[in-house]
Amino acid sequence: MATQSLPIGLFDSGIGGLSVARRVMELLPRENTVYFGDTARVPYGSKSAETVIGYSQQAAAFLESLGVKMIIIACNTASAVALKQVQSMVSVPVIGVIEPGAQAAIAQSRSHVIGVIGTEGTVRSHSYQHTLMELAPGAHVYAQACPVFVSLAEEGLDHHPATLIMTREYLAPLLARSIDTLIMGCTHYPLLAPSIQEVAGPNVTLIDPGVATAMQAHATLAGAGMLNDSDSAPRHDYYLSDLPHKFIEVGSRFLGKPLHHVHRVMVDDLTKSV
Amino acid sequence: MATQSLPIGLFDSGIGGLSVARRVMELLPRENTVYFGDTARVPYGSKSAETVIGYSQQAAAFLESLGVKMIIIACNTASAVALKQVQSMVSVPVIGVIEPGAQAAIAQSRSHVIGVIGTEGTVRSHSYQHTLMELAPGAHVYAQACPVFVSLAEEGLDHHPATLIMTREYLAPLLARSIDTLIMGCTHYPLLAPSIQEVAGPNVTLIDPGVATAMQAHATLAGAGMLNDSDSAPRHDYYLSDLPHKFIEVGSRFLGKPLHHVHRVMVDDLTKSV
Repeated sequence: MATQSLPIGLFDSGIGGLSVARRVMELLPRENTVYFGDTARVPYGSKSAETVIGYSQQAAAFLESLGVKMIIIACNTASAVALKQVQSMVSVPVIGVIEPGAQAAIAQSRSHVIGVIGTEGTVRSHSYQHTLMELAPGAHVYAQACPVFVSLAEEGLDHHPATLIMTREYLAPLLARSIDTLIMGCTHYPLLAPSIQEVAGPNVTLIDPGVATAMQAHATLAGAGMLNDSDSAPRHDYYLSDLPHKFIEVGSRFLGKPLHHVHRVMVDDLTKSV
Repeated sequence: MATQSLPIGLFDSGIGGLSVARRVMELLPRENTVYFGDTARVPYGSKSAETVIGYSQQAAAFLESLGVKMIIIACNTASAVALKQVQSMVSVPVIGVIEPGAQAAIAQSRSHVIGVIGTEGTVRSHSYQHTLMELAPGAHVYAQACPVFVSLAEEGLDHHPATLIMTREYLAPLLARSIDTLIMGCTHYPLLAPSIQEVAGPNVTLIDPGVATAMQAHATLAGAGMLNDSDSAPRHDYYLSDLPHKFIEVGSRFLGKPLHHVHRVMVDDLTKSV
């Protein structure tokens, strides 16, 4: 198989990364993709950095074993704590969602007063904060963990009264700082974007790092002459470490279309691969 | 060490089971305990039965390797899907939370119109429903999964407006059936008991299976002459497969007192033990 036609690999702690896969498929419609979701050990956001690094290395080794031309860490927590460790162990380009998300925020923001919402793990890693300050040393960055958002997003509760109440509570300290840009620093949060935008108001620009990540993937592949120029319909495969009852339903909501080609991979096989 | 002074082992997917450990310590204040929380792979409630059975067997093998005189599955999901598999692999008595919880509900209920709330996995297993119908064949049982409750409980949001809204929504179909008893079929839910009671109203009796499970543990040990009669202060050890940042804070809320003697155990070592 020509290198160009090899799939792009993506991995996430579970199904959230499908919101990134969706953007990749939209921007790179000719590319084949392979997605790994670690549904047997989801979530990563509330676990220690050490544990997340180990899981991420197993996921990357699994994708590399399938033969991919690039790996996208489609998970903010894993991108925040494990990007370098993953890059150092595989031979293909690896991109995370943090840097593209931060770049997009700096590009959009006028005041450079920027808010970040994410999991406990992402916020505590200070990855967005550090990356934003490197890009724009005068920036002011305020971060807020929103742990209840993950289950609200998975339950499809955008615009539910409980979601609006939690959103107002989580955003209040950021809005008090007059942010003009807000990074949705967890792949679950774009599913609550309408609620978040409503609470944040029209003067705050919402950033979905998945969009910027798909653009960076395009640029990286184009620069290396690795874009797929085949005219055949692309194939999208999904490997999950667990197949919970609601996966297809919830996953399709994240992906924005039905899921086909879903496979089970055993965690025991993952742990042997590193 | 005399068999009587061996610890009682408890395990759970994470920290929720500490609400059961709390009841065991209250009712059996002389007993030593060892708690295993699978914080590297929490939660179990949204994962498949197959995966939960495998994790539970690893947890039980780990506790048995430490030397315990009894194992309490302090997790509704694991009790619902893995009790028999765990009982068949270890040589000490194993009790789950489902049967004691169901017995307590039947004993308390006058109308035998009983509600059950729990995780997706527990509700889908129909374990409470089957056990209640065996105990009281004329009973009417209505179950409702409350997936958002876990993160609300972990965030300490009892009586938060968002919690009250979600509670009203989840309980509405059960209250419409005029239940007189409601089983809190997830170890996280007792932390939201005040909100649940407020929404359910004074005519609904809330059942915390952790209390009934501690009573059954007492009966089982007493019947076998295995109660600890030592006068020395008991020791309580906690083994976790991950040590996330907020564990001590959140865990202490579930246990109702500070956590000491916390140890890390690697998942890789667990998977080798089965």
